[in-house]
Amino acid sequence: MNKPETPDHLLSIPDIQAAPDDRDIAIDQVGIKGLRYPLPFVDRDGVVQHTIASCNLYVALPADRKGTHMSRLVALLEGQGAPDAAPLSVAGLRALLDDLVARLEAPGGRIELTFPFFVRKLAPVSGIASLMDYDVRLDAVLEDGRFHSTVTVAVPVTSLCPCSKEISEYGAHNQRSVITIGVKARADSAVFVTDLVRIAEEEASAELYGILKRVDEKYVTERAYDNPRFVEDLVRGVAARLAGDPRFGGFVVEAENFESIHNHSAFARIARGW
Amino acid sequence: MNKPETPDHLLSIPDIQAAPDDRDIAIDQVGIKGLRYPLPFVDRDGVVQHTIASCNLYVALPADRKGTHMSRLVALLEGQGAPDAAPLSVAGLRALLDDLVARLEAPGGRIELTFPFFVRKLAPVSGIASLMDYDVRLDAVLEDGRFHSTVTVAVPVTSLCPCSKEISEYGAHNQRSVITIGVKARADSAVFVTDLVRIAEEEASAELYGILKRVDEKYVTERAYDNPRFVEDLVRGVAARLAGDPRFGGFVVEAENFESIHNHSAFARIARGW
Amino acid sequence: MNKPETPDHLLSIPDIQAAPDDRDIAIDQVGIKGLRYPLPFVDRDGVVQHTIASCNLYVALPADRKGTHMSRLVALLEGQGAPDAAPLSVAGLRALLDDLVARLEAPGGRIELTFPFFVRKLAPVSGIASLMDYDVRLDAVLEDGRFHSTVTVAVPVTSLCPCSKEISEYGAHNQRSVITIGVKARADSAVFVTDLVRIAEEEASAELYGILKRVDEKYVTERAYDNPRFVEDLVRGVAARLAGDPRFGGFVVEAENFESIHNHSAFARIARGW
Amino acid sequence: MNKPETPDHLLSIPDIQAAPDDRDIAIDQVGIKGLRYPLPFVDRDGVVQHTIASCNLYVALPADRKGTHMSRLVALLEGQGAPDAAPLSVAGLRALLDDLVARLEAPGGRIELTFPFFVRKLAPVSGIASLMDYDVRLDAVLEDGRFHSTVTVAVPVTSLCPCSKEISEYGAHNQRSVITIGVKARADSAVFVTDLVRIAEEEASAELYGILKRVDEKYVTERAYDNPRFVEDLVRGVAARLAGDPRFGGFVVEAENFESIHNHSAFARIARGW
Repeated sequence: MNKPETPDHLLSIPDIQAAPDDRDIAIDQVGIKGLRYPLPFVDRDGVVQHTIASCNLYVALPADRKGTHMSRLVALLEGQGAPDAAPLSVAGLRALLDDLVARLEAPGGRIELTFPFFVRKLAPVSGIASLMDYDVRLDAVLEDGRFHSTVTVAVPVTSLCPCSKEISEYGAHNQRSVITIGVKARADSAVFVTDLVRIAEEEASAELYGILKRVDEKYVTERAYDNPRFVEDLVRGVAARLAGDPRFGGFVVEAENFESIHNHSAFARIARGW
Repeated sequence: MNKPETPDHLLSIPDIQAAPDDRDIAIDQVGIKGLRYPLPFVDRDGVVQHTIASCNLYVALPADRKGTHMSRLVALLEGQGAPDAAPLSVAGLRALLDDLVARLEAPGGRIELTFPFFVRKLAPVSGIASLMDYDVRLDAVLEDGRFHSTVTVAVPVTSLCPCSKEISEYGAHNQRSVITIGVKARADSAVFVTDLVRIAEEEASAELYGILKRVDEKYVTERAYDNPRFVEDLVRGVAARLAGDPRFGGFVVEAENFESIHNHSAFARIARGW
Repeated sequence: MNKPETPDHLLSIPDIQAAPDDRDIAIDQVGIKGLRYPLPFVDRDGVVQHTIASCNLYVALPADRKGTHMSRLVALLEGQGAPDAAPLSVAGLRALLDDLVARLEAPGGRIELTFPFFVRKLAPVSGIASLMDYDVRLDAVLEDGRFHSTVTVAVPVTSLCPCSKEISEYGAHNQRSVITIGVKARADSAVFVTDLVRIAEEEASAELYGILKRVDEKYVTERAYDNPRFVEDLVRGVAARLAGDPRFGGFVVEAENFESIHNHSAFARIARGW
Repeated sequence: MNKPETPDHLLSIPDIQAAPDDRDIAIDQVGIKGLRYPLPFVDRDGVVQHTIASCNLYVALPADRKGTHMSRLVALLEGQGAPDAAPLSVAGLRALLDDLVARLEAPGGRIELTFPFFVRKLAPVSGIASLMDYDVRLDAVLEDGRFHSTVTVAVPVTSLCPCSKEISEYGAHNQRSVITIGVKARADSAVFVTDLVRIAEEEASAELYGILKRVDEKYVTERAYDNPRFVEDLVRGVAARLAGDPRFGGFVVEAENFESIHNHSAFARIARGW
């Protein structure tokens, strides 16, 4: 029922998208943007998460083709969301993109999926469990016959200002920050969202939790004060970890501090081989 | 492990929130806002949808209490998301709010949940299936011993301008619109999101689909042209349906047209007993 | 040139909006939403600020009228933005709404304007000047012959957690918060945005600045540590100030803390006569 | 008063940002993000517009420097917004960035400014004037001693679907679209926002206006029906115009159609020398 082919009884309706175009301009990417779809996703632990993704699906369009067939792009997601389909994963992006390009008979394509990802964490002292949410983005590109994919995750953390701590008699301003890590996945390496989350959280002044009892709040307060980090420190700390990791063909790390003493953010960025 | 009670070994840490406050000002609502949580949800068809909600959970705070215990609010969601918990539903809001108020020993409370809801629709001619997404909001309030709840859903549709059709030799400007319906659920009536979606879609110039083949596109184009609707018509048509329905103790309907000929919206609103 | 009347040579085009409607349902508000317009604005100091507002302009529509004339609503803003027009102010809302209702020959109307407002502040020790931005919302309503208006401003501040300070050996988690104050303006009182900003900033752990030198950063860090505030304290402190002020016929105060130790907000709200 | 130098009496406070860093990792960009500031701007007509920009200001940080001085970045905007300062313009980006890099003694820097830009347009038949708003982004980069700048503008237009028109007995679905054009400014050429706006509007099915009387609405409805455009046509039409223009060293054009028959967008993109 979800077959993308045109039903026979419709063939008398003209197919304008399939007509030629005489401007001789190839289109880098054309397709659908912002389609929300429920998708099962698995990461390192192999447990399926029922997430909801915002999906962009594009193909390259040769200069002599007037248009693409948008409905076939949506049909790809219908297939991916079917009960018998393998759940989405970083490792499965290649097969999904190959399917897309084949359905559209396109010379290249691009898939961009963004969705919330949840990790059940234990509070540092009381051990109480709660969920933390992270925004994930998966990109897969097939261009000129070459495939590459990237995994990006935005990790909210605490940052505590070293300058404020040093110059003040007591206290130090701190705030919520978001560390965003993007990595190029090597074809022969397994990349997991969970691993990137841990790197960001370990390099922050403190990590966040859904539930903290008072004993935990004391712990994270003191931990942040013991580990002051400039926005510059956040990106350098993460970059040092990523630069030495053979799984990644390149990376970018950004940190944004929603400053508690200003109404703007402090921001830093390091990219290598990105 | 998810019990919200304070562990015994933590009791020596001072509990400032439990201290008295001497300003003699009661707080209408205090709690957590914008917590993202995966929640199973069921509507009329009884099939569980794995959705992800943005959750606001509040309690009323008496004038003599300094603060509330935020972590217990998050613990409520941990319980709701547990594998053995009954899935969220409109009918189950009362029990969830009663649980909240009991956990916090509060004189009143409020739950606000917003989440995407999906309906598998069949294209009008080809019959091809695809998902459509709708934004749902559930509100439950316990105040002065009285409980009430509301269900709100935002339904994207097509609107086609009657004036443009009438005055033009051919064509008519049309655009995506969002019809938002909110209803007060009566205690003795079952209210389902799906029913509100249908009302909005039936009163529009045309309804939307994830996948449309050419034969379907012809159908919805002509249907919209045959059913022109001002933004005023959209809210009047829906209001006429809701006003006569005994399930609802009051309602509000809003329509916003993202005008294709302007860079602003046309908007209309009717509320009765809201 | 900006007259809203229909030009003579157009009178042969049918005016569908002016036609009668037989569903017998009055519309509470209909008009334009989200129109962005540059508007000069003056507050207490009488100095014109060139701000840019997002404008919603609505009228009430009787049951027997099919539609309103949207273009006349935009024409109102064209007039308001003209070089010879008096700049927008809280005190001038009544005249603007009267003009709107007269142009549309409507029994009632509503104006909602949201815009950034800037205050040049001096850093607390160095005295260096910089701008701070605040989101302002002005609402004016004429309904059943009665006029009322409200002024709302969102003030970003620092909040420092009293519990974290009390239970920790050193440090205390703090974060950016937003205190939102809305007041009903009495007809015989002058209400200024600047005054509401000051109330919110004085009740916070510390206020924010665009530029802080190190000596200022030391000051605000220590001030926040000396003035810990729960989200409950923020709304109670502001409410105590507003409740005793004869200029306001009612108020609402909300505070949202973008918690530095969680990925959700703490929130509190008090409304009196709102 | 706005001098960025540290006042003498503050010199005893330690300057941690100026300390060395031993991780040996240079930072690509560090600074402030999302600072809202009122800025006068001039385009082709030489008339100052009082706009409000969201500003990102960054510098490159050598591997041996621990941090940058954020307050000096804000001070740059204080200077730019001063009454005696030359208004912001595309041609003036180079001087502004040179000033930034000099103040921070940095090897490179980056300025990103986004703001609304208004054009007073005349309705196509009645000639009534009204404003249209467009989102503009200016980027200026100094990297490895090379300067380049880009100008980007998002232009909302009408698109009407050629397929829908062809296959339907009457009508055709249309919707608001946004065409985004970005161009690299050549050092020896003047680039104006207004010119990019015109290119996008001329390539659409129809352009948008703030005020349209009925006679204008008839005109734009029929014009759109006479000029159907796929999302692919929008980007090809603009690309053909930009490719032959000697003022631009490279370009990108994107079009997003907020489909009136779907709840997702159609999207296309062409980049050349970008």
